[in-house]
Amino acid sequence: MRALELRADDGLRESLALVEKPVPRPGRNQLLVRIGAAPVNPSDLMFLRGLYGQKKKMPIVPGFEGSGEVVAAGGGLQARLMRGRRVACAAPFDGDGTWAEYMVTAANLCIPLRKQTSLEQGAAMIVNPMTAWALMEMAARGRHRAVVQTAAASALGQMIVRLAARRNIPLVNIVRRPEQVELLQRQGARYVLDSNAPDFANGLRELCRQLNATIAFDAVAGEMTLHLMQAIQKGGRVVIYGALSEQACLVHPGSLIFEAKRLEGFWLSQWLPKRNIISKFITVSKVQKLLASDLHTEIRARLPLEKAVEGLERYKSQMTGGKILFVPSLRA
Amino acid sequence: MRALELRADDGLRESLALVEKPVPRPGRNQLLVRIGAAPVNPSDLMFLRGLYGQKKKMPIVPGFEGSGEVVAAGGGLQARLMRGRRVACAAPFDGDGTWAEYMVTAANLCIPLRKQTSLEQGAAMIVNPMTAWALMEMAARGRHRAVVQTAAASALGQMIVRLAARRNIPLVNIVRRPEQVELLQRQGARYVLDSNAPDFANGLRELCRQLNATIAFDAVAGEMTLHLMQAIQKGGRVVIYGALSEQACLVHPGSLIFEAKRLEGFWLSQWLPKRNIISKFITVSKVQKLLASDLHTEIRARLPLEKAVEGLERYKSQMTGGKILFVPSLRA
Repeated sequence: MRALELRADDGLRESLALVEKPVPRPGRNQLLVRIGAAPVNPSDLMFLRGLYGQKKKMPIVPGFEGSGEVVAAGGGLQARLMRGRRVACAAPFDGDGTWAEYMVTAANLCIPLRKQTSLEQGAAMIVNPMTAWALMEMAARGRHRAVVQTAAASALGQMIVRLAARRNIPLVNIVRRPEQVELLQRQGARYVLDSNAPDFANGLRELCRQLNATIAFDAVAGEMTLHLMQAIQKGGRVVIYGALSEQACLVHPGSLIFEAKRLEGFWLSQWLPKRNIISKFITVSKVQKLLASDLHTEIRARLPLEKAVEGLERYKSQMTGGKILFVPSLRA
Repeated sequence: MRALELRADDGLRESLALVEKPVPRPGRNQLLVRIGAAPVNPSDLMFLRGLYGQKKKMPIVPGFEGSGEVVAAGGGLQARLMRGRRVACAAPFDGDGTWAEYMVTAANLCIPLRKQTSLEQGAAMIVNPMTAWALMEMAARGRHRAVVQTAAASALGQMIVRLAARRNIPLVNIVRRPEQVELLQRQGARYVLDSNAPDFANGLRELCRQLNATIAFDAVAGEMTLHLMQAIQKGGRVVIYGALSEQACLVHPGSLIFEAKRLEGFWLSQWLPKRNIISKFITVSKVQKLLASDLHTEIRARLPLEKAVEGLERYKSQMTGGKILFVPSLRA
């Protein structure tokens, strides 16, 4: 089969190459998926550069998520029941990922798709929609009156904008450029702040006070975390789920000591397995129903595997302009 | 009465002066305490420089804790019952503190002393012994297998060393100088690391792995927090209770996202009021019983109020050499 293979996670373009390798065979409780489409996410970019928390042995096929058809199943009831189904699928923790014609992964890392769900929407269903859903669940369960989010113009950020509107939760959106302010306002977002504006920190603090915001979702880290920790109200928490700044989080000790605020992290791969089977089923079916609306993924381009390097460059140059999908059945 | 008064929290020596002012009168549920002794703590130094989380209106009498005799009570049953008793006392949140001949404070900020407890030991009973006790309670309740602490040679740090030994909890102590390593080892501490030693970060990580340390108490902040967050085991937490480095805490986002670690704070003024009355009573009586042993405070010098500036200088020059006490009845 054709697959993209990473030889070193040093971020160099020549470290990623299109190769021929044997189609893998599913073991017990595993499935072989013929990949229909696989997106590029920020976590993939981090992985290519060795900055992602989950390290794998090189050479490796990257790609944390995708969709496709189950063409073979190893032993085990769950695996056999999935044979022939269209699924969204996540890469195994220690093996090859989705940027290939085929992938073997655990049956419980595959989610059967509803008829109405296209392979394209299914391909990007796990990383962004599930995370957006999980974060808003966290906000709702913690009875937070208002929420703050950074990187609000990202695909995931825009999903949070729509989920918050549906749930009627006031949301403070932080973006990095004036045109992103307009983008979100056109989508109906009420509170949008540009972190490069001169009075950003004070404006954020004032807004958090007015709305009584006690939770913030942060995909930026670095100095942004400092502002968030100071802006959220007493007893609140900042949840880090990304690190676009590639900097260490900064936190004023006073925020922790005197204001009882907390800093923690979110990782879908850890959140999902903690749900029981019923809650997982409910989550997955709700998320899938919303794929056509709140959790819709905008697709910018569909590229063959041969165009991987070009696709990565395009994605990096503008990360908020819709997803790049690799479609292995396409040829350059 | 004679009192030390702070005119500006700018850290300049001329901002603190000995003045004459009227003896204050206790209101409802308040007590007038004739101060027997009052210590200098790191939190007082922060307060003098405007760096403490709790701000007060200037001019103000500093001093967060002390001891003395209740010489008058305002209305209220609790207050009247305390009349004539020897107490440890904390300064009110918004009023004058203990560095004076008299202080008015809330009856529930005063703790009656046992006969065996001297006014000197009682003077330093709240800030350090209660915090040391509370932190070790947190470690025990959270069933942490092993604990890490920074500033381990401080008065509070040494109390934690003794409490951990009594409870048989493995404790990794971090200090800043070779002579502090020796000091703690002489006291029986088994694991002591010098943070200025060349291989400190790796040594800490290895020790935390061996002992399965999942909680760290940090009074340093800054880059120290980064090392602690990386060293503690998955799912662990770092609790900030001081900021001797005067730097923002640094945290690698990966520690939060992929390792489910958490950063939070501890403040006695917030912890204690959350206890119910029985738990508070038990805590206070246990702490008082240990004042002669594990929670003993070493006294370096007893100074009249006139020698305040000199006392502060001596304390700052060597913060681990025992407490400086102001004794208002002494005259220069």
